[in-house]
Amino acid sequence: MSPVALSSQLAAVLHGKRDLRLEQRTLWPPQHGFAQVKVLATGLCGSDLHYYAHGRNGDFVLRSPLILGHEAAGVVTAVGPGVKGLSVGARVAIEAGIMCNKCSFCSSGRYNLCKDLRFCSSAKTFPHLDGTLQSYINHPAHLLHPLPEACSFDDGALAEPLSVLLHASRRCQLSQGQTVLVFGVGAIGLLACSVAKSKGASRVVAVDINQARLDFATSNGFADDSFCLPMGDKTDDALGRAKENIQAALDKFGATDGFHVVFECTGAEPCIQMSVHAAAIGGKVMLIGMGSRNVLLPLSAAATREVDLIGSFRYANTYPEALDLLASGKLGPINRLITHRFTLNETRSAFDLLIRGLDEENRIVIKVVIGPSDESTS
Amino acid sequence: MSPVALSSQLAAVLHGKRDLRLEQRTLWPPQHGFAQVKVLATGLCGSDLHYYAHGRNGDFVLRSPLILGHEAAGVVTAVGPGVKGLSVGARVAIEAGIMCNKCSFCSSGRYNLCKDLRFCSSAKTFPHLDGTLQSYINHPAHLLHPLPEACSFDDGALAEPLSVLLHASRRCQLSQGQTVLVFGVGAIGLLACSVAKSKGASRVVAVDINQARLDFATSNGFADDSFCLPMGDKTDDALGRAKENIQAALDKFGATDGFHVVFECTGAEPCIQMSVHAAAIGGKVMLIGMGSRNVLLPLSAAATREVDLIGSFRYANTYPEALDLLASGKLGPINRLITHRFTLNETRSAFDLLIRGLDEENRIVIKVVIGPSDESTS
Amino acid sequence: MSPVALSSQLAAVLHGKRDLRLEQRTLWPPQHGFAQVKVLATGLCGSDLHYYAHGRNGDFVLRSPLILGHEAAGVVTAVGPGVKGLSVGARVAIEAGIMCNKCSFCSSGRYNLCKDLRFCSSAKTFPHLDGTLQSYINHPAHLLHPLPEACSFDDGALAEPLSVLLHASRRCQLSQGQTVLVFGVGAIGLLACSVAKSKGASRVVAVDINQARLDFATSNGFADDSFCLPMGDKTDDALGRAKENIQAALDKFGATDGFHVVFECTGAEPCIQMSVHAAAIGGKVMLIGMGSRNVLLPLSAAATREVDLIGSFRYANTYPEALDLLASGKLGPINRLITHRFTLNETRSAFDLLIRGLDEENRIVIKVVIGPSDESTS
Amino acid sequence: MSPVALSSQLAAVLHGKRDLRLEQRTLWPPQHGFAQVKVLATGLCGSDLHYYAHGRNGDFVLRSPLILGHEAAGVVTAVGPGVKGLSVGARVAIEAGIMCNKCSFCSSGRYNLCKDLRFCSSAKTFPHLDGTLQSYINHPAHLLHPLPEACSFDDGALAEPLSVLLHASRRCQLSQGQTVLVFGVGAIGLLACSVAKSKGASRVVAVDINQARLDFATSNGFADDSFCLPMGDKTDDALGRAKENIQAALDKFGATDGFHVVFECTGAEPCIQMSVHAAAIGGKVMLIGMGSRNVLLPLSAAATREVDLIGSFRYANTYPEALDLLASGKLGPINRLITHRFTLNETRSAFDLLIRGLDEENRIVIKVVIGPSDESTS
Repeated sequence: MSPVALSSQLAAVLHGKRDLRLEQRTLWPPQHGFAQVKVLATGLCGSDLHYYAHGRNGDFVLRSPLILGHEAAGVVTAVGPGVKGLSVGARVAIEAGIMCNKCSFCSSGRYNLCKDLRFCSSAKTFPHLDGTLQSYINHPAHLLHPLPEACSFDDGALAEPLSVLLHASRRCQLSQGQTVLVFGVGAIGLLACSVAKSKGASRVVAVDINQARLDFATSNGFADDSFCLPMGDKTDDALGRAKENIQAALDKFGATDGFHVVFECTGAEPCIQMSVHAAAIGGKVMLIGMGSRNVLLPLSAAATREVDLIGSFRYANTYPEALDLLASGKLGPINRLITHRFTLNETRSAFDLLIRGLDEENRIVIKVVIGPSDESTS
Repeated sequence: MSPVALSSQLAAVLHGKRDLRLEQRTLWPPQHGFAQVKVLATGLCGSDLHYYAHGRNGDFVLRSPLILGHEAAGVVTAVGPGVKGLSVGARVAIEAGIMCNKCSFCSSGRYNLCKDLRFCSSAKTFPHLDGTLQSYINHPAHLLHPLPEACSFDDGALAEPLSVLLHASRRCQLSQGQTVLVFGVGAIGLLACSVAKSKGASRVVAVDINQARLDFATSNGFADDSFCLPMGDKTDDALGRAKENIQAALDKFGATDGFHVVFECTGAEPCIQMSVHAAAIGGKVMLIGMGSRNVLLPLSAAATREVDLIGSFRYANTYPEALDLLASGKLGPINRLITHRFTLNETRSAFDLLIRGLDEENRIVIKVVIGPSDESTS
Repeated sequence: MSPVALSSQLAAVLHGKRDLRLEQRTLWPPQHGFAQVKVLATGLCGSDLHYYAHGRNGDFVLRSPLILGHEAAGVVTAVGPGVKGLSVGARVAIEAGIMCNKCSFCSSGRYNLCKDLRFCSSAKTFPHLDGTLQSYINHPAHLLHPLPEACSFDDGALAEPLSVLLHASRRCQLSQGQTVLVFGVGAIGLLACSVAKSKGASRVVAVDINQARLDFATSNGFADDSFCLPMGDKTDDALGRAKENIQAALDKFGATDGFHVVFECTGAEPCIQMSVHAAAIGGKVMLIGMGSRNVLLPLSAAATREVDLIGSFRYANTYPEALDLLASGKLGPINRLITHRFTLNETRSAFDLLIRGLDEENRIVIKVVIGPSDESTS
Repeated sequence: MSPVALSSQLAAVLHGKRDLRLEQRTLWPPQHGFAQVKVLATGLCGSDLHYYAHGRNGDFVLRSPLILGHEAAGVVTAVGPGVKGLSVGARVAIEAGIMCNKCSFCSSGRYNLCKDLRFCSSAKTFPHLDGTLQSYINHPAHLLHPLPEACSFDDGALAEPLSVLLHASRRCQLSQGQTVLVFGVGAIGLLACSVAKSKGASRVVAVDINQARLDFATSNGFADDSFCLPMGDKTDDALGRAKENIQAALDKFGATDGFHVVFECTGAEPCIQMSVHAAAIGGKVMLIGMGSRNVLLPLSAAATREVDLIGSFRYANTYPEALDLLASGKLGPINRLITHRFTLNETRSAFDLLIRGLDEENRIVIKVVIGPSDESTS
């Protein structure tokens, strides 16, 4: 039970736009209620990339050096006082947001909306809370979720973006037999397809502007069908064109009545517009992609057809289901999402690859995972 | 049980834009499953006014002469074969939409979304289905709802717009203790206030650009507080201004966290924009007002705060609750909504008054009710 | 469109306890809104068996000759006037209950609770409504559900008992990641296992007193694990023993906290008692099995743990999902439920086999399907 | 911010069955996250009475001296470190259960089901957690709910039993227009009536075996109508008689179809039996009263009519709504529930009165409130 008293550890620290430095940091023993985790896998997320590339993510600007990374898993190396049910050696996924546990959102099960929530690797709160791109992290024990035996550390890292989709699918009460359309099949969109299938969607269709991503989606069984949109036109009648484009897609799919649920994972205005028209009467549009702050929406086409526009912000109470799903194998070849892998020391190269989007062999980059440092021998 | 075999009856028939004619129409006995109702009160609705003023209502254009009116109540004068539980003399509210009873929307309790629904006084389907601005109407017996003793025929007519709000409040699961903001306090907005109070809203606040309407709302106890918006500005930064305006309102109300539910009853773009900012984290915006087809929306401010934008189209299964509420007296001085009253023969004058919005004594026009024809006795 | 005017057809008519007669019946053309279906598969249900064996089913006593059968599918051979979207030759599943479409249950989506519902093969209403154990049946067209291409007529027949479980799983909001315990793995219990798996249950466990049935359940992948209860003891402390027995089962499963959802499919008092103890805190017991009218229940163990006891009666709005599921293959080797098959002429032998429970080769009887008559050449 | 360092305070400590002693206890300053409250009102609950009268409450036996009381309100006299948004002088209601904030029940909004919840005045956990029948109590600050200005300390105490009913009414989704039957109109049953009315129940009817309580319920407007049951008969056919009795009641009320929701607040077997028959098809029975561990239930009459039996244990996230409701005046003359009042020094007399049930002037005892100690001035 005594904390491991390491003198120092390696961390990939972002000091500003494209200024990522490998540093030695003091490693403290875990406090009351906390455990110490040796991080073995961290998936890089779009928000990490934004911080790296721009020194900010939307409204949140880096105000001091920050360790990125929040899709992570590892092994417990020490537990602080007061920790029950978690031992050294336990394989865990790390739930990155630390809620206040005192406000009405926390006590009513919507802790993702907690105003005092501090999220590892986010610059929203100050002082910033460091993320998982370091060798070890101390984290509240009740936010460390034991990995089922069938789950790898990669799975544990994937549990984070998967949680985003589980939360979204709960918010729209996605249920068996529904038809689902997904706009944008990057990592999040592919997980949307996967979750939809695992919840019994009778049909899952993917739309993107990138044929390679669509091929990935259909050839791996994430989507039943796909449609490649013509690249964004900038004409006057964008809204009218959005309707035409989606109509062409719906006709192709033989889904003239639209889809019960549309997962909008691009955040692009034309796609959000199309989502409204693509949803069936009484259907739902899940707004998952971020990006466009203000969007011109065909709102009466939504309201009079009772198509609800539903936001979804991170997740709450999803990790057990996420890990269970990952262990079950019901998500299909989900590990193929992890297309590239680096050590902690190579984090900068990883981000640079993400910016390029294609690797040297012109293969598509979907999810990049950072492992332990070079010197680490697990 | 034998149908009243009247040779003819009076009807106010719209032949085109502002071309409303009083005509004698043959009165048929009710068919199987139908009953005949002597119409004693019809409230005029915004859609009626659109047809009268423009010969169309949005996309729906008058294609043949049409009898308007769908907020109505009366007395059963005959019942057709196969009708059970309804007798001559029964006082009833008329539910104006006739659903197909065969599709999945009908069988799952969302008959308001039935594609084959025919709605009295609407030009959406063709041949059009005549409304209640006539002396008698034959209507399916199961859509005639007995008035509780405490309900007047005016109440029976009000049950229709009230149903719109009951449906909306169900869609957003309006519940006890929530705070509610209402944009636009015409008849629909006032009913929104009333329903919110009856469901236990802890605070109901009204916003409008018309001080007289706001005074009506607060002095009659429909709203606890009110805010008069500056008249719509047409500047470049409408969205920014929307946020400023609503912030001023929220500050005035001491409701800096926003409202749990916002009923948007204007359909005006700036109000819809303000609705998003006025809703609390995790709150809901009910889209009730029609008008703007395409709206520039601060969508990320909605999505990341899990503020859902929920459409609401007419109603389903609301009449019993509506009549019960009207009988209970819990809606406050709801009859004051009916500010003006005309006979069937004076229907044209009624519409002209609605267009003006103020009567000769400069009193505000909220809801106009048409009674029976002049010659009618009973 | 003209109805097939067959002079007569074959029907298996129950005249009283164990008095089943093959008779020629006049075949009428379908009325307005009805279609005529050549019945190609009818599964026999426990209620059919009760009528055959006892001349009654619980409170419902045979008052005139009745054609049994309500789990059925076939081919449309004629359509009456007013029928849209259904043509001769269509392969359909027959939804056996005809609701009134006028009451509040019907209009709010709970038509299974309609008091005026008439159900094929049930003696509850009088005159009784004949079932599907005849060559042809006239039935409302909107209750005939087109079979997906991948569905056989057997699947169409299975859609009925499957609907029972879909309805039950909706009532308890069965969702991904939950653990499920099923008491009694006859046809209904096996379908409960199957539905639970298709909805993403993380673990499905079966309990029965019949090891052969449990073997069938686990060897075919319907259940992950099973427990064979000692045969019902009739001692004084039945309740205490129920608790002990289920505790032994829970220990065996390593599920000391209990199951999120318990499907009670036996109707036997000790099993209902065990269900309460087997449900986790905050869990649900679905009461599906009929049988015991009055049951001694450990009610405070349910109430203080917020274990809800939820009834489930038939189904509403389930056929599309049922057929979609059957077509998807997600239900596993569901056709193995159909262990025996007879022609319409052999119906009596089929019932007698059901009473015995084992066939001549000592194989277990789960579901028996009756096909067309001998002379039929489909 | 510095804690009040009182040397000692008065406490009413239960040492065993009917062995209640007034003692001086050391008063400690509040720890991190805690505040100190001077208790000004504590309502006595049935569970307090059980401990006093029997030294136990059901399965929970007194294992060491325990301070009772958990329906309480007071004034903050000191706040510990780390407490935000709560100052000395704040008037607060005390939420008596301290949840773990780590388990899945806590994080998903059902903290009332938390296995590690420690509840003031309950002997379930050991060491026991003392209750509010003392001059001061230290309690987690996030469980102290500010009283609205319109709320008295009595109201703050009533917020606890009121919470029980708010929780129950959420569990059964009690909604506007429903009819409600309440079995047993002690304090809990009267609050059930009150909550039902405040949520818009169209009719609230009370059933009891005590005519004086029923008179209290109807004359104060809590119930619209009432029925006095014949005293429990102990004949063989109790179940049959339960059905007859409730039928007589339903006939009297003109409610032959039964009630949408039945609040069972007695825990008595015949009443639970009657509840099933008194609920309408598709209705709900809320099990609130404790008492009978095992109950003979007409279960098929529940299951086949989809009457759900729903447990309700304490409450979660109810205090804000409870206090809001109490401030609103919508609960009617709720303060009349408090029929008797004692000082802390007189606690023993208060319990003895509760045991008798009638005071010296033969007035009914409903709720007894304990105020501060005699010497207290403030």
